Amino acid sequence: MNKKISRRKLLWGAATAASVALIRTVTGQSIHAAVPDPTKMPGPLPGPVGKRSPFEHPVRKPSDISSRSPLQDLYGMITPSDLHFERHHAGIPAIDPHQYELLIHGMVDRPTVFTLADLRRFPALSRICFIECSGNFRTGKETMTPQDICGLTSQSEWTGVLLSTLFREVGVHPKATWFLAEGSDAAVMTRSIPVSKGWDDAMIVYGQNGEAIRPEQGYPARLLLPGWEGNTSVKWIRRIELSDQPFMTREETSKYTEPIKDGKIRQFSFEIDARSIITFPAWPVQLEKGWIEIRGLAWSGRGKIKRVEVSVDTGKTWLPARLQEPVLDKAHVCFRYLWNWRGEETEILSRAIDETGYIQPTLGQLVKARGVDMGGYHLNPVTAWRIRRDGAVLFKPENWK
Amino acid sequence: MNKKISRRKLLWGAATAASVALIRTVTGQSIHAAVPDPTKMPGPLPGPVGKRSPFEHPVRKPSDISSRSPLQDLYGMITPSDLHFERHHAGIPAIDPHQYELLIHGMVDRPTVFTLADLRRFPALSRICFIECSGNFRTGKETMTPQDICGLTSQSEWTGVLLSTLFREVGVHPKATWFLAEGSDAAVMTRSIPVSKGWDDAMIVYGQNGEAIRPEQGYPARLLLPGWEGNTSVKWIRRIELSDQPFMTREETSKYTEPIKDGKIRQFSFEIDARSIITFPAWPVQLEKGWIEIRGLAWSGRGKIKRVEVSVDTGKTWLPARLQEPVLDKAHVCFRYLWNWRGEETEILSRAIDETGYIQPTLGQLVKARGVDMGGYHLNPVTAWRIRRDGAVLFKPENWK
Repeated sequence: MNKKISRRKLLWGAATAASVALIRTVTGQSIHAAVPDPTKMPGPLPGPVGKRSPFEHPVRKPSDISSRSPLQDLYGMITPSDLHFERHHAGIPAIDPHQYELLIHGMVDRPTVFTLADLRRFPALSRICFIECSGNFRTGKETMTPQDICGLTSQSEWTGVLLSTLFREVGVHPKATWFLAEGSDAAVMTRSIPVSKGWDDAMIVYGQNGEAIRPEQGYPARLLLPGWEGNTSVKWIRRIELSDQPFMTREETSKYTEPIKDGKIRQFSFEIDARSIITFPAWPVQLEKGWIEIRGLAWSGRGKIKRVEVSVDTGKTWLPARLQEPVLDKAHVCFRYLWNWRGEETEILSRAIDETGYIQPTLGQLVKARGVDMGGYHLNPVTAWRIRRDGAVLFKPENWK
Repeated sequence: MNKKISRRKLLWGAATAASVALIRTVTGQSIHAAVPDPTKMPGPLPGPVGKRSPFEHPVRKPSDISSRSPLQDLYGMITPSDLHFERHHAGIPAIDPHQYELLIHGMVDRPTVFTLADLRRFPALSRICFIECSGNFRTGKETMTPQDICGLTSQSEWTGVLLSTLFREVGVHPKATWFLAEGSDAAVMTRSIPVSKGWDDAMIVYGQNGEAIRPEQGYPARLLLPGWEGNTSVKWIRRIELSDQPFMTREETSKYTEPIKDGKIRQFSFEIDARSIITFPAWPVQLEKGWIEIRGLAWSGRGKIKRVEVSVDTGKTWLPARLQEPVLDKAHVCFRYLWNWRGEETEILSRAIDETGYIQPTLGQLVKARGVDMGGYHLNPVTAWRIRRDGAVLFKPENWK
């Protein structure tokens, strides 16, 4: 995976014009017995659905309640749908799309049940954005991958109808200020959402990366609140109730709140703060000297990423990384930074700056702002990777600076 | 799928405040026996890789040499990787990525073999663009879907290294004007490509929609020539030879050329002309009266789509459709157009205009420009769907206007 470019085999003289068969001999390579020369035997014909190469085995790391996207194995900004992280409160419900209904009621003029066909008939919109779990930070040991540390974020192209379109259809009362979003999983997952988000950019989505949304992601339809903590984008959504106050459901009282300073608890902290992580090089990569392209992801729930800065000298100096166009609103963006590693021991870090001017904090700054007992939500500290002289790359769990 | 919005069930009075269970009774719906109430039973736990819903069965339509993307079943601009169209000349080769090598030689200073690890170590780039087969037009009967008519176009986010980076690495001679791209399938597929495309935006890609490129798409690496006819983006690429003339391979002499006027044949017609197709409503959809969102795809190999125009009156008048942002270079873009169908017999059509000012031609204009015997390549006529009074939607094979 990380062979040095200097190992490239240069071909000289007569070999230059030789056939590929000869080249293979010259470079001393032999074809693996399991894979005969593919030019000598026609391969399988086209099929109805494609499959991964048998040499590729990307997997999420599942627990009983979640599974994490393998960020270090991915390319670009789209997460393959079958590798999108999962977080459920009672497993994946099996829903017959022909039986699916979404009820919108409460402080509305025309309480209405929408079938899936109804939702699809409204003007549609597609947008590429991330969904991140608010509990997306793990730490504690050096031997952690990006997937281990923050694999509860993924990105898809979502297609559906703007919730504002449905709000106009049912006639939401001017005095409605909150709505309840309720899922049809066995947890009957519920969250209270300010109506303003419904009028802004909330969607009911039924399409993901070109196809029907996946079962783990809310099939046949979920709420999508771009840039907000993942649990508020209620999956398998079956009911929206308009009200003039929040509903104070279990998930927003006992959970999904976080301690801040002076013994206070913060509730309804919806927006995902700007964050970045270097996904290459990262543990367990073994680095070789020479030019390395440091690669990673950056994102913000408050808008576009304006800049990502990388430090290759333990945070002493920071320089801007290249951002992959198009840089989209509330979306993962790939960043890349060329670095010539000469074998020194160092730490490499990245920090995201979003269009609001917010700068991704260090763990020390987070603790200073929120106290030592910060809980497990909305933690977005700068991630440091320690590079040892022998090329080992290790996560630095206590990166306070 | 296309139930009228007016069928939505309105709930009045006491039912408004009732539970969802009651609502279901009120509307007379019963849960399908195979899917018990999902709120009453915890579902399966998270897993290493997700699966489609058992209710979803999108498929390509395979023949011995190709398979076609189900355009009418897709959402947004990304084609799921396992539904990307296929076109092979000798099936799908099985390639061990650890044995993979790309040789660049000929008119270069430093003929070089690159391993996959070498390619991944170079500065990377991601871009979303379409690949379309130059033979992507079928006609002949009314009962054809968009997949049947032009399913040999698909779009992915591709990740890899710019070919210009490799050109600099090997020192391409200033007098080199063409290169041979050779695949390692059993057809040893070869095409001659002008070097200028290599210096412009050609890539060697190893990533597709976030993961390793799929076997049918060239695993572990393919050439990508954005905007050019698909067969030139040689899959399973193993050799690039720089030269000062084209190589006149089988595929560019006996095939992939097209008759133009006066008995002449056009060769090296690389660029994909601007095109669009309405994917909804399309055969076999049964239309119902009322507001319909006409939806489709538009693309051009020459740059961005500037405008898509839709006619709902058999081509008499044309109005601009909405384009889904971001509109990307050499990429499929979704267009949408709201139409109130009152039950009249009519034809609906779309035409793409790209940033060069090129307007997608009618079949009549194509014939006028290229003669009746146009062959089977680079055909991009305006597609018309006939709407009958009974709501049937039929392809109009002979749409000359």
